[in-house]
Amino acid sequence: MIIRKDGRGLSGIRPVKIEKGYLKYAEGSAYMEIGNTKVICSASIEEKVPPFLKGTGEGWITAEYGMLPRSTQVRKVREVTRGHVEGRTAEIQRLIGRSLRSAINLKALGERTLWVDADVIQADGGTRTASITAGFIALVDAIRWMKQEHLIEPHLSVIQHQVAAVSVGILNSQCYLDLTYEEDSVAEVDLNVVMTDKEEIVDIQGTGEKRPYTPDELQQMLTLAKMGIKMLVQEQKKVLGLEKKPLP
Amino acid sequence: MIIRKDGRGLSGIRPVKIEKGYLKYAEGSAYMEIGNTKVICSASIEEKVPPFLKGTGEGWITAEYGMLPRSTQVRKVREVTRGHVEGRTAEIQRLIGRSLRSAINLKALGERTLWVDADVIQADGGTRTASITAGFIALVDAIRWMKQEHLIEPHLSVIQHQVAAVSVGILNSQCYLDLTYEEDSVAEVDLNVVMTDKEEIVDIQGTGEKRPYTPDELQQMLTLAKMGIKMLVQEQKKVLGLEKKPLP
Amino acid sequence: MIIRKDGRGLSGIRPVKIEKGYLKYAEGSAYMEIGNTKVICSASIEEKVPPFLKGTGEGWITAEYGMLPRSTQVRKVREVTRGHVEGRTAEIQRLIGRSLRSAINLKALGERTLWVDADVIQADGGTRTASITAGFIALVDAIRWMKQEHLIEPHLSVIQHQVAAVSVGILNSQCYLDLTYEEDSVAEVDLNVVMTDKEEIVDIQGTGEKRPYTPDELQQMLTLAKMGIKMLVQEQKKVLGLEKKPLP
Amino acid sequence: MIIRKDGRGLSGIRPVKIEKGYLKYAEGSAYMEIGNTKVICSASIEEKVPPFLKGTGEGWITAEYGMLPRSTQVRKVREVTRGHVEGRTAEIQRLIGRSLRSAINLKALGERTLWVDADVIQADGGTRTASITAGFIALVDAIRWMKQEHLIEPHLSVIQHQVAAVSVGILNSQCYLDLTYEEDSVAEVDLNVVMTDKEEIVDIQGTGEKRPYTPDELQQMLTLAKMGIKMLVQEQKKVLGLEKKPLP
Amino acid sequence: MIIRKDGRGLSGIRPVKIEKGYLKYAEGSAYMEIGNTKVICSASIEEKVPPFLKGTGEGWITAEYGMLPRSTQVRKVREVTRGHVEGRTAEIQRLIGRSLRSAINLKALGERTLWVDADVIQADGGTRTASITAGFIALVDAIRWMKQEHLIEPHLSVIQHQVAAVSVGILNSQCYLDLTYEEDSVAEVDLNVVMTDKEEIVDIQGTGEKRPYTPDELQQMLTLAKMGIKMLVQEQKKVLGLEKKPLP
Amino acid sequence: MIIRKDGRGLSGIRPVKIEKGYLKYAEGSAYMEIGNTKVICSASIEEKVPPFLKGTGEGWITAEYGMLPRSTQVRKVREVTRGHVEGRTAEIQRLIGRSLRSAINLKALGERTLWVDADVIQADGGTRTASITAGFIALVDAIRWMKQEHLIEPHLSVIQHQVAAVSVGILNSQCYLDLTYEEDSVAEVDLNVVMTDKEEIVDIQGTGEKRPYTPDELQQMLTLAKMGIKMLVQEQKKVLGLEKKPLP
Repeated sequence: MIIRKDGRGLSGIRPVKIEKGYLKYAEGSAYMEIGNTKVICSASIEEKVPPFLKGTGEGWITAEYGMLPRSTQVRKVREVTRGHVEGRTAEIQRLIGRSLRSAINLKALGERTLWVDADVIQADGGTRTASITAGFIALVDAIRWMKQEHLIEPHLSVIQHQVAAVSVGILNSQCYLDLTYEEDSVAEVDLNVVMTDKEEIVDIQGTGEKRPYTPDELQQMLTLAKMGIKMLVQEQKKVLGLEKKPLP
Repeated sequence: MIIRKDGRGLSGIRPVKIEKGYLKYAEGSAYMEIGNTKVICSASIEEKVPPFLKGTGEGWITAEYGMLPRSTQVRKVREVTRGHVEGRTAEIQRLIGRSLRSAINLKALGERTLWVDADVIQADGGTRTASITAGFIALVDAIRWMKQEHLIEPHLSVIQHQVAAVSVGILNSQCYLDLTYEEDSVAEVDLNVVMTDKEEIVDIQGTGEKRPYTPDELQQMLTLAKMGIKMLVQEQKKVLGLEKKPLP
Repeated sequence: MIIRKDGRGLSGIRPVKIEKGYLKYAEGSAYMEIGNTKVICSASIEEKVPPFLKGTGEGWITAEYGMLPRSTQVRKVREVTRGHVEGRTAEIQRLIGRSLRSAINLKALGERTLWVDADVIQADGGTRTASITAGFIALVDAIRWMKQEHLIEPHLSVIQHQVAAVSVGILNSQCYLDLTYEEDSVAEVDLNVVMTDKEEIVDIQGTGEKRPYTPDELQQMLTLAKMGIKMLVQEQKKVLGLEKKPLP
Repeated sequence: MIIRKDGRGLSGIRPVKIEKGYLKYAEGSAYMEIGNTKVICSASIEEKVPPFLKGTGEGWITAEYGMLPRSTQVRKVREVTRGHVEGRTAEIQRLIGRSLRSAINLKALGERTLWVDADVIQADGGTRTASITAGFIALVDAIRWMKQEHLIEPHLSVIQHQVAAVSVGILNSQCYLDLTYEEDSVAEVDLNVVMTDKEEIVDIQGTGEKRPYTPDELQQMLTLAKMGIKMLVQEQKKVLGLEKKPLP
Repeated sequence: MIIRKDGRGLSGIRPVKIEKGYLKYAEGSAYMEIGNTKVICSASIEEKVPPFLKGTGEGWITAEYGMLPRSTQVRKVREVTRGHVEGRTAEIQRLIGRSLRSAINLKALGERTLWVDADVIQADGGTRTASITAGFIALVDAIRWMKQEHLIEPHLSVIQHQVAAVSVGILNSQCYLDLTYEEDSVAEVDLNVVMTDKEEIVDIQGTGEKRPYTPDELQQMLTLAKMGIKMLVQEQKKVLGLEKKPLP
Repeated sequence: MIIRKDGRGLSGIRPVKIEKGYLKYAEGSAYMEIGNTKVICSASIEEKVPPFLKGTGEGWITAEYGMLPRSTQVRKVREVTRGHVEGRTAEIQRLIGRSLRSAINLKALGERTLWVDADVIQADGGTRTASITAGFIALVDAIRWMKQEHLIEPHLSVIQHQVAAVSVGILNSQCYLDLTYEEDSVAEVDLNVVMTDKEEIVDIQGTGEKRPYTPDELQQMLTLAKMGIKMLVQEQKKVLGLEKKPLP
């Protein structure tokens, strides 16, 4: 049996710690650690929608992703200094936005934009999936606040299901769940999976980094991802107290 | 049986036309039409590699993607006018680059960068997958030129397999192959698949645009994608004369 | 008698091929080849004018010019990557805009902007003059469409005259018409001329690249330009069917 | 006697919490809370100096400052989205850089740059002064690491004195120490003071926001600042264990 | 006694020449020489305020600062070429704006913005302080014009006091007034002081460039600054004819 | 006979005032007034050439053009604020650079770049032509300095001829020399002419702003331009003392 550097088996996820309401000013927020990866998410309400939604009565969710310069092993130049958002950042913020939007009844939001910001304090693999998992918490936190403030009518169902995400990869032809940075950088195949609490797929993105992979391998990776997401969905339920009060 | 607007069945791809050596100055180039989607690809050689490869003896492939302002139904503002590459563009050029790199023995390139440019003349769905399919032709064209010019030794195997790509989607719970723009804009689920000629996956990216989807649906879409890619791989073989001379 | 590399005499223009309605979505479009130079032009209608025309009832024409990265002998960096429009591009788009505006009764347009995009697929000298000659075709194409769609009243005369352009140069003290890239790069003097079908000047721009030139030489170059433009004006007439239906 | 909203007297500073070594990858780092203001500082070593120092054997310190989008009461647009560093940010990073440089023997650093990043997690007034106070901790942390790694010879004295900073202001003609955001936004005069542990001034910047002020008032504010800095210098000593091991 | 290179004593200011109404088109303008430092200031009226003032009836003052490329000993790259405003420029324009705003009754302006531009023709130290001193003249010039044009009612008091600025520094532990570039570049301490004609402080900014300084030294520098400002306030009075007509 | 607003006849130029050595630090400089148009030009030496000239032993001349924000009737936004060089600016700096380069033996320069900066203090028409006329003075001033400093050998002939420029236009079918802003804005045709002291053309750029024009009209405008340039060439001779010491 393979034991990983940090003592996990192939299908283990790293220790998870999630804190809701981490930021004083944001309408919704969450702090999440998964192993050494640490992310702060906030959800901010803006009373405005992008031009293509004006007059439709519908709302929108936009995500932005950033990394502190020293969240990484080598200091990263700030994007404002580079002068533009990097391709990787753009790809990640599009993924987070798409994933969270899929969980939401945008009509129930009214003509408002929810800005979900995910900022990485420390990066040890899985920052984009952690941003989705924690971003979902911040979103629920903000929607509850909106209902409490009577910005949304209490009987409207705004959030349709939970959304969580995890990474899987193949190393030496073995499937690994929840890769660290070190594992990720030598993985042959790398798959990010976003799923609901009903085990339906919201988004998958899988790349043969070192070699192409077979549909069978995809199947195995998906199975592992499902296990990881099940655990993360439980963590979300706990932090959000979903046994007692339902999704808003 | 469902017949689509343009007369195809669900598992049909649109008429394909590929022309190799379309541009006079590029080391490799291709023009591809798939239905009303039209793309020009070129492969250009630069005797330089990105900093992280200096001194390693290895080469690199970088892809850039652009759209003519009036390739689309409504005129698109040029990216230089906006002042930055859009998120969608960044995502697409990363996908093209990754997909083509996977086919290449970068060591055999020597310390050179191959710039693959994909420029969309007309956009009717599937521009990113056409860019990969045609970009591969341009790449082979350029590698052959390099061997002919003795930049690469003739016995070295540079290209390991063919790479082609196609889109699949779900509309009204039915799987459709090779979506037009009109179909794409109402699809419930949207999957882009990049595969080799051996039916192995290079990259998949699948989003539940209107609803999450089941692993079973993913399976069905993959099956359809495999069919489409088989056809495109045949087209590539024809244009590149692969029956007579092998991949360089 | 001097015979040029491509078999032309000093006062010959290269083979011209113009295709109207090249793009499916644009209100007006044209594709033009002159020798190895290839340009796609489109004319797009926007129901808006720049601030200085708001409320005047008048319209505007704006031109933008771009080059595919591998239209040139050495790959050109995309302008969005550089981060700004190059000086040369700015100069050319101002010239195209001015030249086309001069042919148009802007009042008849109503408060609309016509965006003329000229994108160079392959560049072998004379791209700015081809952009004007083909841009004019796209413009007529778009105005006819506007009349047909009843955006402009049929009796209004919108286009006042034809506009075409050609380059002339001095090499070894001889005047050459319609320079190729190779000729242009060694020319002593370089003149771009934009004229109407009545042999009136719309714009001239002439630079002593290697030495100053005399007013007499200017005279000779103008005479040659007139000959070239006469031929291009004929091509335009043919493509637009002007013998049968007049300028809109 | 005036009691402030949070229970402090006029010359009180808010509860301070400083944690050294907060980030796993940085050579030096610190987390600081002062009331609701929360800042993460890191010090990163780059084996390179700005051009004007090349060949001099001297090192450099550069500071960068950022705010998480939702560190503030209203969400702040990311600077990369704006496209440029705001004036306020530029002013602050210059202040931090100058202040920390003044404490350092740049010759002892060798030809290296220390990048000090201060990122604000939550902003309730005094973020620039907290960035200096905590940035100093990160700096000492990094220099100790450098000595331990034998990048700097152990006997060299690199850091000459402690540097800490505090804000003072005048409200209703009364001097207040360590302003909260709420106090700051109504202050008549606003002074930021950077001092050494020997009560010498490193930098002062004082603005009459609502009215000019007298040299006497400046004197009173300075006196208050001195008190605040004394307390912060004590906190630094504790966190850095300066009773036991001296400044590196 | 110390005699400086240009013959001044420690408490002397360089020869001052101020000309009001230097520019033909600006509503207010001034040209100022102090030694070899030469600055052109203009005040321009815009019938618009920043968003945060809309509907308040109040006006605003914004300052911008620039340097001709060859105002300095070594040619400076234009900021538009760099692509962004330098930190130093941002810091200076914020200082000028703050200082001039403090003199003005913004309510009396109405919902208008006054743009004060300070452009340095030649830079020999003290450009920011000269920009404030001359910017004040331009401001008064513009306000008088506004009253004359009946944009502001004649009885309203718009300008509350004079504002002028000067630099002071410590070299070899001696305080120097009004530093030249050469003096400034070797100064141990550098202080910029903005004061009213009533000897009240509007802004001070003092940095220990080479060493920290004592509160006593600050005191001495302030005393010297007061002397310099007294002289500059007299110059302003003369140019503005304040003995005859009061501040508008 | 037509008398213009400022008392000139059609073929008169406005009062000219040129001052050489206007700036203290520049290697060459000039200040020029022509009517109300005021321009400062400098020539700065950089010991470096653009990449395409490295190793050739040849030098280069680059021109940059700027306008003070309040040089114009309505305040112009600074280009750094806009974020890019405007098309008009790019066109003008290319014209100035081309025109001055034509006068210079670039080989004699050695591998150096001469930066010619033209900054407009006040703009009343003809700023680009004044920039060329005064830029030429700054250039000669700098070359003389280089010879004096032994950067260029004394016997080398660096400057081959004088270069000056003037604008001409057609108003109400009459040719006008040296247009003011007011005349320029209603001109039917607008021509800028750059010539040598031998009446040879360096550059012409002529636009039919309101209507096309005939080759005859071009002829007449050229004749007028020649007269204007003759006068400006005399002014240059005087300022440069060319009767006594020849072009360097």
